[in-house]
Amino acid sequence: MKIVLVGAGNLATNLGKALKRVGHEIVQVWSRTEESAASLAEVLQCPHTVALADVADEADVYIVSVKDTALQSLAEGLADGHPDRFIIHTAGSMPMNVIPSKRCGVLYPMQTFSKQREVHFRDIPCFVEALQDNDRQMLMQLAASVSDKVYELSSENRKYLHLAAVFCCNFANRCFAIGEELLREHGGVPFSVMLPLIDETARKLHTLSPQEAQTGPAVRWDTNVIDKHLALLSSAPDVQDIYERLSKSIHDDKLRFEKD
Amino acid sequence: MKIVLVGAGNLATNLGKALKRVGHEIVQVWSRTEESAASLAEVLQCPHTVALADVADEADVYIVSVKDTALQSLAEGLADGHPDRFIIHTAGSMPMNVIPSKRCGVLYPMQTFSKQREVHFRDIPCFVEALQDNDRQMLMQLAASVSDKVYELSSENRKYLHLAAVFCCNFANRCFAIGEELLREHGGVPFSVMLPLIDETARKLHTLSPQEAQTGPAVRWDTNVIDKHLALLSSAPDVQDIYERLSKSIHDDKLRFEKD
Repeated sequence: MKIVLVGAGNLATNLGKALKRVGHEIVQVWSRTEESAASLAEVLQCPHTVALADVADEADVYIVSVKDTALQSLAEGLADGHPDRFIIHTAGSMPMNVIPSKRCGVLYPMQTFSKQREVHFRDIPCFVEALQDNDRQMLMQLAASVSDKVYELSSENRKYLHLAAVFCCNFANRCFAIGEELLREHGGVPFSVMLPLIDETARKLHTLSPQEAQTGPAVRWDTNVIDKHLALLSSAPDVQDIYERLSKSIHDDKLRFEKD
Repeated sequence: MKIVLVGAGNLATNLGKALKRVGHEIVQVWSRTEESAASLAEVLQCPHTVALADVADEADVYIVSVKDTALQSLAEGLADGHPDRFIIHTAGSMPMNVIPSKRCGVLYPMQTFSKQREVHFRDIPCFVEALQDNDRQMLMQLAASVSDKVYELSSENRKYLHLAAVFCCNFANRCFAIGEELLREHGGVPFSVMLPLIDETARKLHTLSPQEAQTGPAVRWDTNVIDKHLALLSSAPDVQDIYERLSKSIHDDKLRFEKD
């Protein structure tokens, strides 16, 4: 398929590379700044532009992968005067209808992208939606060409999927970061000692549910240990607060689980 | 070495198997209940008892691996009248001096143990402490016989290590569990779709620090997305609260990081 990439961030870069690798033609890259447009265009060996009016007209699909706040106005600019363009976005948290076109769609690859890391796109679950049947079929095929895990999902359900991903990725990572800070300030050992524990915490979920996998003082409601930990955190009230609330959440969940 | 295991829980079971596998002699298992003592003794093919007075006298080390609340009185029972016994515990959160003996020590294997999962003990970091130099050397050797990662660590530092482990394992897992609940109630897809994201979230830390690895609406301080997520959680105020505090913690940490 012929593709225009609108945006040149982490996701656009990873998706663009994956699409090119399996043989799609990246017709053009648009970005707000000359520097980022040229940089991604060089990687993908294609033309680039910073003017929406100069965006190529012959693409099968226009993939808008930009900050949520810039999405709507860019989609409007692309659709304006071009009702036949198939315009999709890649955002987990935005509904499909921010794209003012009957040919609108979404391809949300759920993964955590960092500039410094290459990801294997084949393993990334992709969630697809489109207003029209033909477009949805085309988009499912496009997604299946780069990922082994493609699901159809409505905007309504995608909202919750994205929220769940924030807990499973961003908030879990914040817990890792707090652990790192504690070790840096007091632990006497490098953070790398935590990696086997963190790896096993993730790996467990391939065979146990998170409820079944839960361990630690909070699930045993060992108030002796909990109180000692809270005292250690007395100089960091915000972290102390997070400790208290997550412990209570684990305990409450266990009580609910046992009641059922 | 000749070893008596005092306790028959997850940790005692995993440690006992690992010790036996590399050739140590498990002389005896003690547990509070006949059933659990007999069950672990069968696995380790050794005698068992439920009477502290009947604990074998010829062991090189007595490993007490029980609930924190039961630890002190058991250690006292073992030490009483036997000042030469080398008695150690395996608890991350307890100081060494709960063992009332000059021959006291700690071997803390930092991992999350669940009955349903076998762990590879060689990969588990073990943290060792002993009051006397000879005992410490013996304990370092014992730990090194079952684990490739053995560290000497004081009770004071171990407190913080254990607290860090609660964040990196127990609280990260609670975040996974909240994600699972959200998907179960609203997502339209099974929790298994999250596994590639969770795996990558853990794997990233092998090359990036948790600060560098942080992504998501909170680190971008995208209040548009954050407010939408908070609204989705309005029927679960405790989870909403956790969302708000973890987001703020991510944001505050980023501001500190940029200031440095």
